[in-house]
Amino acid sequence: MNSAPLSGLYAPSLSLLTDLYQVTMAYGYWQQGLQDREAVFHLYFRRPPFQGGYAVAAGLAFVADYLQNLTFSDDDLAYLGSLRGTKGGAMFPPDFLAYLKEMTFSCDVDAMPEGTVAFANEPLIRVRGPLLQAQLIETALLTLVNFQTLIATKAARIREAAGADTVLEFGLRRAQGPDGGLSASRAAYLGGVDATSNVLAGQRFGIPVKGTHAHSWVMAFEDEEAAFTAYAQAFPDDSVFLVDTYDTLEGVRHAIKVARAMRAQGHELGGIRLDSGDLAYLSREARELLNEAGFPQVRIVASNDLEENLITSLKLQGAKIDTWGIGTQLVTAYNQPALGGVYKLAALRKPDDSGWDFTIKLSEQLAKTSIPGILQVRRYENEQGQPRADMLYNTAEPLPEQLTIVDPLDATRRRNVRPHAPFRELLEPVFRRGRLVGPLPTLEESRARAHREVLSLDTSVRRFLNPHTYPVGLEESLHDYRTKLIVEKRAGRRA
Amino acid sequence: MNSAPLSGLYAPSLSLLTDLYQVTMAYGYWQQGLQDREAVFHLYFRRPPFQGGYAVAAGLAFVADYLQNLTFSDDDLAYLGSLRGTKGGAMFPPDFLAYLKEMTFSCDVDAMPEGTVAFANEPLIRVRGPLLQAQLIETALLTLVNFQTLIATKAARIREAAGADTVLEFGLRRAQGPDGGLSASRAAYLGGVDATSNVLAGQRFGIPVKGTHAHSWVMAFEDEEAAFTAYAQAFPDDSVFLVDTYDTLEGVRHAIKVARAMRAQGHELGGIRLDSGDLAYLSREARELLNEAGFPQVRIVASNDLEENLITSLKLQGAKIDTWGIGTQLVTAYNQPALGGVYKLAALRKPDDSGWDFTIKLSEQLAKTSIPGILQVRRYENEQGQPRADMLYNTAEPLPEQLTIVDPLDATRRRNVRPHAPFRELLEPVFRRGRLVGPLPTLEESRARAHREVLSLDTSVRRFLNPHTYPVGLEESLHDYRTKLIVEKRAGRRA
Repeated sequence: MNSAPLSGLYAPSLSLLTDLYQVTMAYGYWQQGLQDREAVFHLYFRRPPFQGGYAVAAGLAFVADYLQNLTFSDDDLAYLGSLRGTKGGAMFPPDFLAYLKEMTFSCDVDAMPEGTVAFANEPLIRVRGPLLQAQLIETALLTLVNFQTLIATKAARIREAAGADTVLEFGLRRAQGPDGGLSASRAAYLGGVDATSNVLAGQRFGIPVKGTHAHSWVMAFEDEEAAFTAYAQAFPDDSVFLVDTYDTLEGVRHAIKVARAMRAQGHELGGIRLDSGDLAYLSREARELLNEAGFPQVRIVASNDLEENLITSLKLQGAKIDTWGIGTQLVTAYNQPALGGVYKLAALRKPDDSGWDFTIKLSEQLAKTSIPGILQVRRYENEQGQPRADMLYNTAEPLPEQLTIVDPLDATRRRNVRPHAPFRELLEPVFRRGRLVGPLPTLEESRARAHREVLSLDTSVRRFLNPHTYPVGLEESLHDYRTKLIVEKRAGRRA
Repeated sequence: MNSAPLSGLYAPSLSLLTDLYQVTMAYGYWQQGLQDREAVFHLYFRRPPFQGGYAVAAGLAFVADYLQNLTFSDDDLAYLGSLRGTKGGAMFPPDFLAYLKEMTFSCDVDAMPEGTVAFANEPLIRVRGPLLQAQLIETALLTLVNFQTLIATKAARIREAAGADTVLEFGLRRAQGPDGGLSASRAAYLGGVDATSNVLAGQRFGIPVKGTHAHSWVMAFEDEEAAFTAYAQAFPDDSVFLVDTYDTLEGVRHAIKVARAMRAQGHELGGIRLDSGDLAYLSREARELLNEAGFPQVRIVASNDLEENLITSLKLQGAKIDTWGIGTQLVTAYNQPALGGVYKLAALRKPDDSGWDFTIKLSEQLAKTSIPGILQVRRYENEQGQPRADMLYNTAEPLPEQLTIVDPLDATRRRNVRPHAPFRELLEPVFRRGRLVGPLPTLEESRARAHREVLSLDTSVRRFLNPHTYPVGLEESLHDYRTKLIVEKRAGRRA
């Protein structure tokens, strides 16, 4: 694995990868003398993707890398300096650009490690530090975490559907740009696929790479048999023949013929691949042909717009598929191609430094109203390590003796926490005063965590359709405080 | 605009941004002595996206950049050399890696200029050159063209819905990774949006950037009025106030109060932004409040999951919206997040160099069967420059005197081409023997082309739902040859 930093993927840097309004707000805060006011933001989503019951947090490694390299180059500042307002004047004065040039990232960042199972409203990342800085990084954090969490979650669902079968990701050609492929390959591996076709992802992230040949290989030869024979000469012990260029079952027969010739020379065919047609029917027929011919070990690889529901359905129909190749549906999260993660201001140090103002964004829908405080997520688990309920609480206030968790959408739903119930705190220190606290987990460690945490969920929460809603609530005093704040803020309204 | 090459966005290069099977096939061709056999591939899609009637070609600038930088570094080759087969031996021998190291891209590439309107089955790109090279570049070409064509097309539809209104793209935070945002911003601009929030896209591509403030700005102040006042101090002539942090119409009243104070000091409020709630109702109410208060020039910007159908519907309902802010739906092409473009081998020089073998990929569905030949796309236009029909023909065969265009899906549908009918040939030379023929059009030129070409289409073809199918057919002798080839290839099948 290449040890270059992830940011090395982009040149010269991602510091300008932001919405302009982050920069205009930064200027506004600076102009108002608010740049160093201590602020707390939370990054969270309001609903798990795919109408599912959970998400798998991912993207933090990229976030850490971005934050470690957050400086504005002279080119960046020259560009910002070149921007003009409607009256033709400079949008940003030189003093402010000089401030940006000298700015050093100094926030505290706490986050769920990659691979952690996350639920609605739980901060995946908490940023605490100077208002200007904590605001400025919003867009990049959302871009990195939204997409990778989306794909890791999709991969976890596909892994669940495939069970112990091998799952390959090969979506690069339909990905949303080069990086849509590259970071998707990483997130998919983190979420549970076994290998990727994406060579650059293999090089950069140490992910196993797989792949054999395309239809064009077959078309480049006189006939299928000649094409398979030639491929077997190149890869005598690593051949998977794509059999559907002309006619799938004829293709299987040609593969068997070549497999016999390979065996005569001391080699075994690895597999065949089906890429079109009815995969349940064709895989059963192909399995039978292969078994009858004495090739029960030849694996059947299937591809063609597969996703978790189709895999489940094919398995129910007795498809004889050993390896699932997943492309477009995985790398673009086709049925929901964006996670609607948000980044909300939740606390601001009082001007006189006497404590915190906790802040809230209202919405007509209670589910979209934000949660004030400096939050931590506490996950209560049973003796077998299975999560039972999560509690969000405000770390800036003392916790009462008896803890009660209140459903934020239905305050009549409450559960008391049993004394000494075992728990984990999910947000862990990542940056302190702008410096990385320690090395992040490796991709393999994060992948193992994702696997472990998803499997620890009750199957009802993992169900693809209409899953059970895992209980996530607010600690009672936080809930009461939030309710009071909502009522206060709404008091200004007219009938 | 930064003049650095597009490839500078990625480091060190995109040469490994490929599916492993491109490299295994390359090795296979090399081992079989086929690496230099002249081949022709076409990149095309089978259906326009969004169930629409057309697509806007985009991504060629990135393709050209990728091809100009297609070399394997020592790191790349070391990585390929490190890959192992199932028996533990090296996947690729040193001789082959040495061949890759020395390889120089030498293909001819012809393509539709960016911004060209394209239809199903028409090659957007034609690659002709050594089989190994022409195959190796498949994945990167598809990744770059599929995504950018998808987004440019979505943007063209949104532009059509918005009419003369201003359209802003600000989807970065929900984009599929940093580049999913960056190349989406470029493609969206090409397809017709007016500006982006994405600062890096502004810097790299010279796209106008726009943006004001977020909810958190409002939350960071004592109340809305204080927040708007502070923002107006920073940007007295460039303020757009976001009015829905607490209560939208109260927010409009606060905006008006601050706008009066601004006017007293010689400044005018630019606009207000609505980001939630019923945009038809709220925009009408807001417009009335603003007009009554003497601010008819204050623009109303609306955002919140907008796309072409919703814009059309809001306009029908009399929404008073001047500027449309489009995010997730545009940059992820939410309702169809991938274009299924393919890259198919269509011709191969005969081993004895006596001419061409034209190749075909069969499918159970005729629509998915490829088209053999060395294709060109001829677009017949009427005197007003409106496209009437497109004809695909094989440039390797002489054209008959009387041209007839045959619908590939229904051979009974034919139209004779009137003698001397004016036409354009859509595929233009981009590379000759691996060298860029000349500078590509600028982004502004491509954007103007897209605008012109989309508007030249009959409105029935531009309709969002159930559009008229623009006629694209095969020149009769090509159609007959293809039919013969299909029948021959199918002859091997068993009942």
